[in-house]
Amino acid sequence: MKKASKKRNIVIAQSGGPTMVINESLAGAAHAARKSGRFGKILGAKHGILGILSGDYVDLGKVSEKKLMQIAATPSSALGSCRKKPTADDCRAIFERFRELDVGYFLYIGGNDSADAARIVADEAEKAGYDLAVCHVPKTIDNDLRSCDHTPGFGSAARFVASAFMGDDLDNRALGGVKINVVMGRDAGFLTAAAALARKRPDDGPHLIYLPEVPFSLEKFGRDVSAAMKKFGRCVIAVSEGIRDKGGKPIGAMFSGGERDSHGNVQMSGTGALGDYLAKYLKETTGVKRVRADTFGYLQRSFPGVTSLADSIEAFTVGAVAARAVLSGKVRKATVGIVRNKGRRYSVSYSVIPIENAAKFTRSMPKSFIARNGHDVTRDFVEYAAPIVGELPKCEIL
Amino acid sequence: MKKASKKRNIVIAQSGGPTMVINESLAGAAHAARKSGRFGKILGAKHGILGILSGDYVDLGKVSEKKLMQIAATPSSALGSCRKKPTADDCRAIFERFRELDVGYFLYIGGNDSADAARIVADEAEKAGYDLAVCHVPKTIDNDLRSCDHTPGFGSAARFVASAFMGDDLDNRALGGVKINVVMGRDAGFLTAAAALARKRPDDGPHLIYLPEVPFSLEKFGRDVSAAMKKFGRCVIAVSEGIRDKGGKPIGAMFSGGERDSHGNVQMSGTGALGDYLAKYLKETTGVKRVRADTFGYLQRSFPGVTSLADSIEAFTVGAVAARAVLSGKVRKATVGIVRNKGRRYSVSYSVIPIENAAKFTRSMPKSFIARNGHDVTRDFVEYAAPIVGELPKCEIL
Repeated sequence: MKKASKKRNIVIAQSGGPTMVINESLAGAAHAARKSGRFGKILGAKHGILGILSGDYVDLGKVSEKKLMQIAATPSSALGSCRKKPTADDCRAIFERFRELDVGYFLYIGGNDSADAARIVADEAEKAGYDLAVCHVPKTIDNDLRSCDHTPGFGSAARFVASAFMGDDLDNRALGGVKINVVMGRDAGFLTAAAALARKRPDDGPHLIYLPEVPFSLEKFGRDVSAAMKKFGRCVIAVSEGIRDKGGKPIGAMFSGGERDSHGNVQMSGTGALGDYLAKYLKETTGVKRVRADTFGYLQRSFPGVTSLADSIEAFTVGAVAARAVLSGKVRKATVGIVRNKGRRYSVSYSVIPIENAAKFTRSMPKSFIARNGHDVTRDFVEYAAPIVGELPKCEIL
Repeated sequence: MKKASKKRNIVIAQSGGPTMVINESLAGAAHAARKSGRFGKILGAKHGILGILSGDYVDLGKVSEKKLMQIAATPSSALGSCRKKPTADDCRAIFERFRELDVGYFLYIGGNDSADAARIVADEAEKAGYDLAVCHVPKTIDNDLRSCDHTPGFGSAARFVASAFMGDDLDNRALGGVKINVVMGRDAGFLTAAAALARKRPDDGPHLIYLPEVPFSLEKFGRDVSAAMKKFGRCVIAVSEGIRDKGGKPIGAMFSGGERDSHGNVQMSGTGALGDYLAKYLKETTGVKRVRADTFGYLQRSFPGVTSLADSIEAFTVGAVAARAVLSGKVRKATVGIVRNKGRRYSVSYSVIPIENAAKFTRSMPKSFIARNGHDVTRDFVEYAAPIVGELPKCEIL
């Protein structure tokens, strides 16, 4: 005879910037939850915490396995997203809604701000005496969570960036001059650094790489470009949107109009101003006639068909691990960590660890990944990133 | 016994903006030339006419078939490119070089300006009494040659644009607001129009499409966006970099600094200024808080791995047709035309036609492809473009 015990419901939601594989995590969580048979309803909240507050849900238990796998392979956040830091009042409202629906488990897929939002919800639940197991599911193209060797979403975005630089370097070979490409990454340079994976030959670009971790000086920039022009007769440059001056002030902040989200982050993407500013400076100071700037923008996180296989698998798995974790009864507020296994062949392990490892604080590029000259990455970085990104298209030159 | 007749040499070169498949045309021409056994040397001039003037050649006859096919699959112009209109003096210098090398055949792969350059070379050769058969090989992502139903290079660039809009529309679903994407195309709107191929569902973006063929008014733009926001709660917009005001003046020209090539074309790409200008206008006038603009830039013509199969095959074939055409002895100055065959199944035929069909004059979007409201394309355009672009990645929503 079946044991009659009331199964509590689980809410899954997505938050922050989309990635190419964030739906893999959603599908992984929903799939594992369904397979366990130990949850009641599997509810997807629309637009993160906003959907919980307004009661806007998709019943993921009713989505077919086939459709779920199609969603997994689709870029961007299928449930919709938000950039909201929950207040104590929000949390009280959340628990009222959760109580009505008998929600006992909450998975929040997102970056460090989303981990912090999940932590706040968990802390407030404890204060309010509401029985809730919370697990954050990591994702961010920025690769800046301390809890992960690398974050789901980074590998695919890095694959887009590396592919883009391969093609753009060939374009620059054909027509010459200077080409600046501005890459996403507010605080950490990992995604910009991934441009280095485009190089196969000694004279392949990017010839210069500027990271937020290294103070940026316009004068040094001009000198670096002139030196590269002398050496290669052309110059392809990767610039992080988050480059900062000596005082730590983002160069791009002067163009953003000061728009901020509720976590206090200044908006930087969605404008070509930083690239245009740098191109103008080079035109005026270096004597190079043909200077062009592109800003890769949102394509880096949403372009279909450029996903990294390792990234897809890992994103699916962290979702599944989180769903199983909240079932264990031992988890109140946790995140899923990714550890790279030792050994020559690339593989990873997953762990359920305290949410503080992902929340609030971010990670920058370690010194061992940054070249001494301040405008390149090291061999160590390339070896770190290559297996996450996967094999790139072959390009041949005459 | 072998008949001893002196085989004259052939020069192949590339010119204008690169495409993802321009090397298919190079490989097609070199392959057909080699296979015919009726040419002497098969020489690739570096950087178009500039390499002919400076004597900078690659001996394509010595490149292995395997490497030639790898080059074919690599984006951008493997021989390098230029944007040079040859003067009468240049032509005299060209014939001196050609005479030294015994060049009897010249293939120039490029757009309408390159066709015009090839025409000038052919006309000057006739005047100078230099025996030269010239054939232009069509390529341009702009799809604006009158000689082709569609041009090699367009299908792959359109595939990139349609894929980018698919992903970006999903991104906009997740976070809302207005997203502007600026697409290449100085005079013709075909590539911008290809954004429409991203739509599968009635509420899919792009919700608005602005072409150079329709006079652009900021006021109408603002009204269109407000109406779309009301209807869809969000708005994704495709804008051609070549949009013009009522008087025919390109809106983007005010940001370009007036840089021109020797064909007199104003430089437009390689800056995010137009997108930023439109985003600023919308922020100030429509009340929408989240407005972002990306400019797709050079990735549209150089991103590896996003080529259209039909485009690759056609690009290879026009190269081969041109090589065979100059051998015929009947061709003095020609181009290769592409005609779409009648019938339900997509197929094309190739023809060798007078070079004037490709040179100088460009083609715009026909009226039957532009929606009456002035901010969309018709079903006719989608049916025209879909087989050229090929099947797109599947994206699923909840």
